[in-house]
Order: sequence, then structure tokens, then C-alpha cells
Amino acid sequence: MKPAPKTPSTELGQKKERAANWFRQLRDTICASYEAIEIEYASSHGGSAGHFTREPWDRSESSAPASPDKPDLKGGGEVSLMKGQVFEKVGVNISVVHGTFTESFRPQIPGAVESEGVFWAAGISLVAHMKNPFVPAVHMNTRMIATSKCWFGGGADLTPTFPFENDTADFHNSLKAACDAYDPKAYDEYKAWCDRYFFLPHRNEPRGVGGIFYDYLEADWEKDFAFTQSVGRHFAEIYPQIGRRHMDQEYDESDKRTQLIKRGRYVEFNLLYDRGTQFGLKTGGNTEAILMSMPPEVIWE
Amino acid sequence: MKPAPKTPSTELGQKKERAANWFRQLRDTICASYEAIEIEYASSHGGSAGHFTREPWDRSESSAPASPDKPDLKGGGEVSLMKGQVFEKVGVNISVVHGTFTESFRPQIPGAVESEGVFWAAGISLVAHMKNPFVPAVHMNTRMIATSKCWFGGGADLTPTFPFENDTADFHNSLKAACDAYDPKAYDEYKAWCDRYFFLPHRNEPRGVGGIFYDYLEADWEKDFAFTQSVGRHFAEIYPQIGRRHMDQEYDESDKRTQLIKRGRYVEFNLLYDRGTQFGLKTGGNTEAILMSMPPEVIWE
Repeated sequence: MKPAPKTPSTELGQKKERAANWFRQLRDTICASYEAIEIEYASSHGGSAGHFTREPWDRSESSAPASPDKPDLKGGGEVSLMKGQVFEKVGVNISVVHGTFTESFRPQIPGAVESEGVFWAAGISLVAHMKNPFVPAVHMNTRMIATSKCWFGGGADLTPTFPFENDTADFHNSLKAACDAYDPKAYDEYKAWCDRYFFLPHRNEPRGVGGIFYDYLEADWEKDFAFTQSVGRHFAEIYPQIGRRHMDQEYDESDKRTQLIKRGRYVEFNLLYDRGTQFGLKTGGNTEAILMSMPPEVIWE
Repeated sequence: MKPAPKTPSTELGQKKERAANWFRQLRDTICASYEAIEIEYASSHGGSAGHFTREPWDRSESSAPASPDKPDLKGGGEVSLMKGQVFEKVGVNISVVHGTFTESFRPQIPGAVESEGVFWAAGISLVAHMKNPFVPAVHMNTRMIATSKCWFGGGADLTPTFPFENDTADFHNSLKAACDAYDPKAYDEYKAWCDRYFFLPHRNEPRGVGGIFYDYLEADWEKDFAFTQSVGRHFAEIYPQIGRRHMDQEYDESDKRTQLIKRGRYVEFNLLYDRGTQFGLKTGGNTEAILMSMPPEVIWE
């Protein structure tokens, strides 16, 4: 007799599977479109088009047993990395992990005290650092997390070295369209959240020109999932348009130097303030996947 | 009638003045010896010898009044910065500051609850990132802090990209000599403290080959001050010797690249874990003086 097909037996199980499948599908769409840009660029400028390498990581075996001060983290993911002629370095990580949060960490996470620390999380995160200093760097991350509650969070933000008004407007308008279909008040709220979050107090400057940031959407799973998908689709559509605008723009050494200095701020933000980076690195997450966000080359003046 | 000479009226006032004078004197000694290396190098290799620029900073006016969640920080210092042919970037900061710690921070600092947050601090800190990848990067910092208690702390550690056994041994032996004259048990203890402190758990690797780290020396001010001076003198003597050994050593692009990657670890440590950097940046310290420690150029693979 054949074994029964592996189907999620619960409603929550089905949601987890649908979310994880979506993050994977979005990853495939985005990677294909970025490779298309590389091919396009190489066909007109020569050189060889960048393509993604894909590295799976799996902690189901290696994870140490839970101890009171170390979270128990199992699962895995895939890091897709491309170093090309347009994309100096772009990393896309998808992951599906589960485990148990430490007791001291639980109060920070909705529903984690009630779940006795048990959690499940899946998501996609992307950071692109571009060769041409006139092409903005970009970041996108969306995720579903389940404890005794279940919610979506994420966002996307643009970090130009030299901001162009139409890039900023188009990026925001695209994300606004995703927000407006979800809730007419969402865009203003999520834009403000993004501005608050991606800010470097020690330099009194924003990381970039913003975007949206949202978290703890748990009121209506279908609606929140549809919104998260829409954010991903809009992001996937708008960023290549902005990239194509500037990838051929002429620049000199001084422009490049300005970009490498701007990247220093990116490093400072991620290591000093970013919740995911700090938590991930300090609690035994996958270092390479977490530090995928680091720029390839940086200058401090 | 002439005004009376400005003399510290208390015993503690005299200690503060002696310590602050020492940090300044050590700064002068070190800067002169590093400039001598630059002159020596330029005389045999051509090019122009690096020299320090000195930038004073002063917060006595600009500091905002204390609020419950922001420390009140006044005082100032001088950042000495050199970009040369041997020293790719070296910064030496001396400072004398005073103010009031926030209530929530006080329990972390000896004597600060009892002083109602009032503190005084003076110190010197130095970070050198070297052009030649075979010359180790180095860090040194010593300080005197007064709350209702008064103590010395500091240390020095070496971060080679390519460790050489004799460099490591000579650096440690020099600091050991300073320790041994202070307390026969000091070196083992302070070496171990340094190894624990300068460690990157997310990479499971030490920042470098260690040195010494000490804090809260308050038993005997004269003896502790003499020790802190001795650490400074030994450091001032040994590092130029190590630098001269390798500054002419041939290297290729791949060696340089390895150094720039190693520097990424330095950035990660300072922004993720270093107590002074984290506290300073998050509570309104002088950003440029604090981030003086950042390497001039970095690569993440």
C-alpha cells in the first residue's frame, strides 16, 4: 500500500504550507527578474551576466537541545546570492524554522508566553547592493509567525545614495497601492512605522527614503496573507523599473566613494539597531544568512 | 591683583587632573612615535609621510539638559587622526567628560546609584588600521572614572590578519611586564578577561590574538594609576616595534583582500558587542569620536 500523501492535518498546518509556498514562489519570481536584468545589461555592455547561486541550509540535525538561555531553533532555508554587473551583491533568503524561544525572550513576542515558547516562522528577506551608485540599495522582508497567535509582518524600503524624486515617489506609490487595497489607513501608518524604524539616532538621519513597515497583522488571516502577497508582488514589479532607470547612468570615482560611505550607515543600522540581525546573531541563528545583508564593500571616512 | 592660580581644591580634583594630564601626555608620545614611523617609511620609499590632524570637540555648550531617559553629558576632547602610508587610518581620542547617568543606567556602573548618577570620566582610546596586511591592527584604551567610587580600567589587544607567533608573544610579554610589576596574578586574569571580551560568538571566533583587559581597579589609587601609566608606556613601546617588522613586507591583492574581510569582523564586534560603542552611540556620545574605530575600508564576502 502506498503511504498516504503528506497533507497538513490542521487548518494552521495548511496556512503554514500556503505561506511557505508563497515565499518560495516570490523568491523564484524575483530571482528570475533580477537575472533578466543582468542578461539585458550584459547583452548591451558585454561581460558576463550574473546569476544566482543557491545554498540550502538545514539546522534540523545540528541544533543543540534547548537550554534555558539558548533558543531551540530547527528548520532550514535557502540563501540565493548573486554578484553581477548590475547587482554588486544581492541576497535572497527564504526560511521555515520552528523551535522554542527562551523564557526571557517570550514576553517580547505576542503569544509566546502562552505557547510556552513554541514558535514557527517562515519568511523571505532580500537585500540588494548595486554596482552603479545611482541605483538605490533596497531591502524587503515579509514573514508569517505562529505562536499561540499567528500573524504577518514585513515591509520594504529604499536606500539611495543619491535620491531621485521620481524613484522615491514610484516606490512609495507602488507600496501604497498594495496598502490601499488592504485598508485605506494602512499606508500612512506603515510609512510612518518605516520612517521611525529605519532611522539612525546617532547620526540623526534616516537610513534611506523609506517605504512601509508593518507587523502583528492577525485579525483576518486570509486578508493579511493576501496583503503580504500583494506587498511582495508590488515590490517585485517596482524595483526592477527603478534599477533599469539608472543602471546605465554614468558615474565617476567620487560618486562610487559616496556610495561606499553611505553603505557604512547601512552596516551601522543593521548591526546596532536591526531587531532581526541583533536577535539572530546573539541567539545562534544562521550567521551567513543573517549577514547576507552586509554590503560587499564599505568605506568609513 | 592677579587671579589665584586655578588649582583643584580637593584630593579627588588633583587625581582627576593628574589622570587627565597623563592621558594627554601619552597621546602626545604615541602620536609622535607614529609620525616618526611615517617619516622613516617615506624617507626610504618616497611619497609623503602621514601626519596627525587634531580636532577638538566640546559639548559644554551644546549638551541638552538632562531628561530621565537621556544622560547629561558635558565636557570635551580631541580626536587625533592620521591617514598615512603605513597607518592606513589611526585615531587617538582623549576626553574629559562629566555629567549624570540616566536612572536606568546607574545600576550598571559601580557607585553611580550612590552618586545619584553624577560621574566624571577621562581616558584615551586608540585604534590603528594598517595599510600592509601583515601589520596587525591594534586597539588600546585606558580610563579613569569617578562616581561615588573612583577606578581605572582599560587594556590593549592585537588583531592581526595573519598572526605571527613572535608578534603575539612580544605584545603579550610587554603587557605582562606591566602587569607583573602590579600584581603577580594580574596578567593571567586580565589576559583571560580580554579573551572573553573580544570574542564574536556568532562566528565562534576571537577578534584577534588578545592582550589584556581590566576594569574596576579601585583599591589603591596611586598603585592603580601607576599600573595604568605602565600599560600605556609598554603599549607605546611595543606596537611600533611590531609595526616596523612588517611594514615593508611584500603583499599582493589577495593578502589585502583577506585583510579587508578580517576588518569586517572588527566592525561586527564593535557595533554588535562593544560596550563603549553601543552605550556611546545609543546615548548621545560624540559619534565621530566613537566611530573613529571603524576601519577605512571593509569587504564582506
